[in-house]
Amino acid sequence: MSEEQSKEHYYLGVDLGGAKILAGVFGADLRLLGKNKIRTKPERGFEEVVQRISRCVLELVDDFDIKPEQMRGLGIGAPGSIAPDGDVIFAGNLKWENVPLKKKLEERLRIPVFIENDCNIAALGIYHKELKGVPENMVGIFLGTGVGAGLILNRQLYRGSHLTAGEIGHTVLDVNGEKCNCGNRGCFELFASRSAIFRKIDKAIQEGEKSLLATMSDGKLEDLRSGDLLKAMNRGDKCVAKVVDEAAEYTGIAVANVVNLLNPDVIVLGGGIIDALEERMMPIIERVSHEHAFPGTENSFKVQSSKLGDDAGITGAAVLAKQKLEGRVF
Amino acid sequence: MSEEQSKEHYYLGVDLGGAKILAGVFGADLRLLGKNKIRTKPERGFEEVVQRISRCVLELVDDFDIKPEQMRGLGIGAPGSIAPDGDVIFAGNLKWENVPLKKKLEERLRIPVFIENDCNIAALGIYHKELKGVPENMVGIFLGTGVGAGLILNRQLYRGSHLTAGEIGHTVLDVNGEKCNCGNRGCFELFASRSAIFRKIDKAIQEGEKSLLATMSDGKLEDLRSGDLLKAMNRGDKCVAKVVDEAAEYTGIAVANVVNLLNPDVIVLGGGIIDALEERMMPIIERVSHEHAFPGTENSFKVQSSKLGDDAGITGAAVLAKQKLEGRVF
Repeated sequence: MSEEQSKEHYYLGVDLGGAKILAGVFGADLRLLGKNKIRTKPERGFEEVVQRISRCVLELVDDFDIKPEQMRGLGIGAPGSIAPDGDVIFAGNLKWENVPLKKKLEERLRIPVFIENDCNIAALGIYHKELKGVPENMVGIFLGTGVGAGLILNRQLYRGSHLTAGEIGHTVLDVNGEKCNCGNRGCFELFASRSAIFRKIDKAIQEGEKSLLATMSDGKLEDLRSGDLLKAMNRGDKCVAKVVDEAAEYTGIAVANVVNLLNPDVIVLGGGIIDALEERMMPIIERVSHEHAFPGTENSFKVQSSKLGDDAGITGAAVLAKQKLEGRVF
Repeated sequence: MSEEQSKEHYYLGVDLGGAKILAGVFGADLRLLGKNKIRTKPERGFEEVVQRISRCVLELVDDFDIKPEQMRGLGIGAPGSIAPDGDVIFAGNLKWENVPLKKKLEERLRIPVFIENDCNIAALGIYHKELKGVPENMVGIFLGTGVGAGLILNRQLYRGSHLTAGEIGHTVLDVNGEKCNCGNRGCFELFASRSAIFRKIDKAIQEGEKSLLATMSDGKLEDLRSGDLLKAMNRGDKCVAKVVDEAAEYTGIAVANVVNLLNPDVIVLGGGIIDALEERMMPIIERVSHEHAFPGTENSFKVQSSKLGDDAGITGAAVLAKQKLEGRVF
């Protein structure tokens, strides 16, 4: 390690998902220097996951010859609702309820830790890294296993009065639609999440439609990934194309609903479904959202996909840590 | 006029509607001292309406023995989209496009004039006068001829990037619903505006249902007022009750959509439909919105009706003028 490097300090960003832990080390200027990834293994329980997060981070820091005192802080995005004190109130994917994630990580790592909901943190990362903090108002919409949003209003992360803002997946688009786990009918998530897309294709296959996914999966569609949808479409799978196009149309309507209510400058789409299918879905989302925007506002907003992909979460986590430690929003 | 009163200063608030101009004079503490109301007569054109606004205000000021130099400023809510410089870009009700309302009123009245969209200004009035500026986040939803919203986020009026935020009436609740003037299908406004409610009752009557409104109006339902709906229901009109209850249910779903996206502390309902029908509609709106809120957030928000009624607009207009002149948000 050079003399100069030893004086530098670093931020750590962690994206905690149900399946994997992704950690990134960032320079003081928030440039991504390197990443590490391990499986989450939530079935082993909270304490074990905390240990695995630490291991993922410490391996990365060690790889980059960074000394403990050079780590200024760590941000982490978790899939669930987060209390102001850093407890995770509820995270369905991880089967966590009221666990002291911040406290336990700080005990292990001996650096300040800041926690935020995963969609909020991804929006923060996209806003500061990809959009350079330029727009006044941005909405990030993420299509993954579920559907969520992160809101940047007046250049700041908007969390809502009880930190639960952004549940766009459970806004109703079709009052007469099918029942959602949340109790509503016709939620946006029922049309555009990874789970919903595979469920619809599965149903179509059960009803006699032909799809390559039936053979690709040996009939077990839940084992397939978003990328398999693209593969099937590229090989001419009309059943998959129909379901994916419909997901994009509903997403376009959800985008327009947000535009009409919040009038942001830009809506950024991200998440596994968009990362895999953006070429097919984005033109539809763009067209439909502009068709559905309130007359006169069609040209007031942009719809784009994030280029950060999997790195949105770790980037936002590092941004969060830097903001909190510098006591300012930038 | 007492010596003491002559030293005081006053704010003026104007609510400009398609049918009437309502003006209020407020003390420095924003207490409403008195009101004046005249017809708008938009068919006479922009210049004439400006003259009528001035007349309405000057009569009021004269009634209260207020001298010109005691009027600190005037706020005005207009039904349409307002440019930052105070031009009205578009106001369908008034048939205005790009008219310099602020400039013309300032020329006439020789005091500073501040213009804002009518839903924004009503939300501002409710927030500061009725809720005493306590909640961090509030959404005002107004059911009148049309349906609109005003958003108070982080204790400030949120206008959006191009000042068009709040078009909740044109968020889609039923993708397969009937076509709206805005081009979408199944917009919230199609279920809960005054026009929609009368249109649905009219349709039901055409289809053979019995309603007292048919006789009350000599068949011309468009001449009836929101209060007539209440009268009919009080006399046991099941056709009207069904349509009004349905409007309340859809409003409940729209409230829940806003709650899930923005997680405000409170949602306040107002506008002519609510003023007339709150006893019938509010229990339904409350129940449905809480049923549709994301699990775990049902107790995080309150739904209530505004008690300011017709005064919400003039109150918010006076608040706006005071905020602008004092250069601060309070």
